Amino acid sequence: MKLHNLGEDRLLNLLLAGLSLGKAVAAGPGDDCALVAIHDRRKLLVLKVDCVVEGVHFLRRTSASDVGWKAMMRPLSDFAATSAVPHFALITVIVPEQTKVAWIKQLYRGLRRAARRFDVSIVGGETSSTPGEIAISTSVIGFVEKHRAVSRRGGKPGDDLFVTGRLGGALRQKHLQFMPRIVESRWLTENFSIHAMMDLSDGLGADLPRLARASKVGFKLDTENLPLTGGAKINDAISEGEDYELLFAISPRDRNRLEREWKKRFPRLPLTPIGSLSRLSTKDNQLLARGYVHFQQSG
Amino acid sequence: MKLHNLGEDRLLNLLLAGLSLGKAVAAGPGDDCALVAIHDRRKLLVLKVDCVVEGVHFLRRTSASDVGWKAMMRPLSDFAATSAVPHFALITVIVPEQTKVAWIKQLYRGLRRAARRFDVSIVGGETSSTPGEIAISTSVIGFVEKHRAVSRRGGKPGDDLFVTGRLGGALRQKHLQFMPRIVESRWLTENFSIHAMMDLSDGLGADLPRLARASKVGFKLDTENLPLTGGAKINDAISEGEDYELLFAISPRDRNRLEREWKKRFPRLPLTPIGSLSRLSTKDNQLLARGYVHFQQSG
Repeated sequence: MKLHNLGEDRLLNLLLAGLSLGKAVAAGPGDDCALVAIHDRRKLLVLKVDCVVEGVHFLRRTSASDVGWKAMMRPLSDFAATSAVPHFALITVIVPEQTKVAWIKQLYRGLRRAARRFDVSIVGGETSSTPGEIAISTSVIGFVEKHRAVSRRGGKPGDDLFVTGRLGGALRQKHLQFMPRIVESRWLTENFSIHAMMDLSDGLGADLPRLARASKVGFKLDTENLPLTGGAKINDAISEGEDYELLFAISPRDRNRLEREWKKRFPRLPLTPIGSLSRLSTKDNQLLARGYVHFQQSG
Repeated sequence: MKLHNLGEDRLLNLLLAGLSLGKAVAAGPGDDCALVAIHDRRKLLVLKVDCVVEGVHFLRRTSASDVGWKAMMRPLSDFAATSAVPHFALITVIVPEQTKVAWIKQLYRGLRRAARRFDVSIVGGETSSTPGEIAISTSVIGFVEKHRAVSRRGGKPGDDLFVTGRLGGALRQKHLQFMPRIVESRWLTENFSIHAMMDLSDGLGADLPRLARASKVGFKLDTENLPLTGGAKINDAISEGEDYELLFAISPRDRNRLEREWKKRFPRLPLTPIGSLSRLSTKDNQLLARGYVHFQQSG
């Protein structure tokens, strides 16, 4: 079987099935970040890797500084999903020998600018030549207080679902210049009990079912209520991906206080209730258009 | 300027010059591993990333399981150089959509087998498609006791230089199936004061000058005394690279005890004195044939 017949979720399941994880591992592959116990009893070590590839995540003509920004901010968006604080990054840059040094310098300018935005130190890097396309892989390491670590798994039937910001239309420009919602996520877990959370990278249509599956619940989505980027349609918000906004589940008891305090703290960033979690029953789950899934051409 | 005119060392210097490192960072980019302070006062967090690329580090026909072994063991060899204990790994796999799922499964079999050998948990992974060549990037995270962390920087004039194992001829087979010298390195720092250490990945001719530069000393190499792999010539041992053996500097006062105890503990692995460090003076440094340097076609 070839990769494009399999789809990324099934590929990951297949690869992860064989892994034996040490006792220290609280959350392993499959969640937004890995969480592992360290000697500090109050904190977990948080680890995440992500990559961007020419021809898939950016084009040769894309500004190298934008590529660097995106390469750093994608894993930082997973830190936001976990409500973790990033500290260190490792970069792998794979480029053809004919690449201009100026391009690499610009790439690093983007990486550094993004890292500085969240006080992340780039502590290691590896470069290799390739006969093929440019690829940049970024690993980020940080910490989270045990009681504030959020995963996709804690959603409960009856929880309200919220998204930050606006969805859809990212592919036109935003996907290169987005801001991971780390500040917002840290504020959320400081002030509320967030049951489950993730960042929207593949589109609500692919990502919401993942959160529901991980929480072993169903969901209802008010598609009419989705906060749309100017010019975007409902279907873009569901299928396009690369929004890097937060999707989270919270008790309906907290809804009023959340909406009130959010408006005070983040007056310029919308927070929108988009549905709720339900008991697991297939008929509740509306058929969503698929988000972008690597390796899957039809589904 | 194009990358292939620059050479990897100069490229790294250029990229690293702009980085601002946090106060926690004890050793940043440029050493074998990055070391950062954590809340545990006795330990440092150790971070390293490395990658293998099709057409550079392996061929399409190379066994996928061997590729996985190499992709995991290369950064673990840097842990050996630092005398650190690896704990967690993050994997990025970048492959064309036409790749057979069986190939990826074999790749992961090699990655898992290598990780298990040193009790490393693979806690996260990222896959992406590419229109180009296969690339695998591996980040490894672990710890080292502060007083046992070794870098390239502590070599002193008069120190004896030793290498483990045999050099040269790696490209024929060994480069796919080598064993990082973590056990040996941990034994060394448990029993001796190791002034400076690194793993030999680019060949003695490129790596020894790096250790000397980092320690701000010169060196003398007894080329006649190099421990050669069967069939290899002195020049192979100096220029070929991919030996993944340890090169380290130790006080001549410890030499007799080291050689005696090593033979008892590791009777099947040679340990060979190959020269010494000297005061910095260019005329001491013999002209070495160049090891393999990425991006540099002539020098």
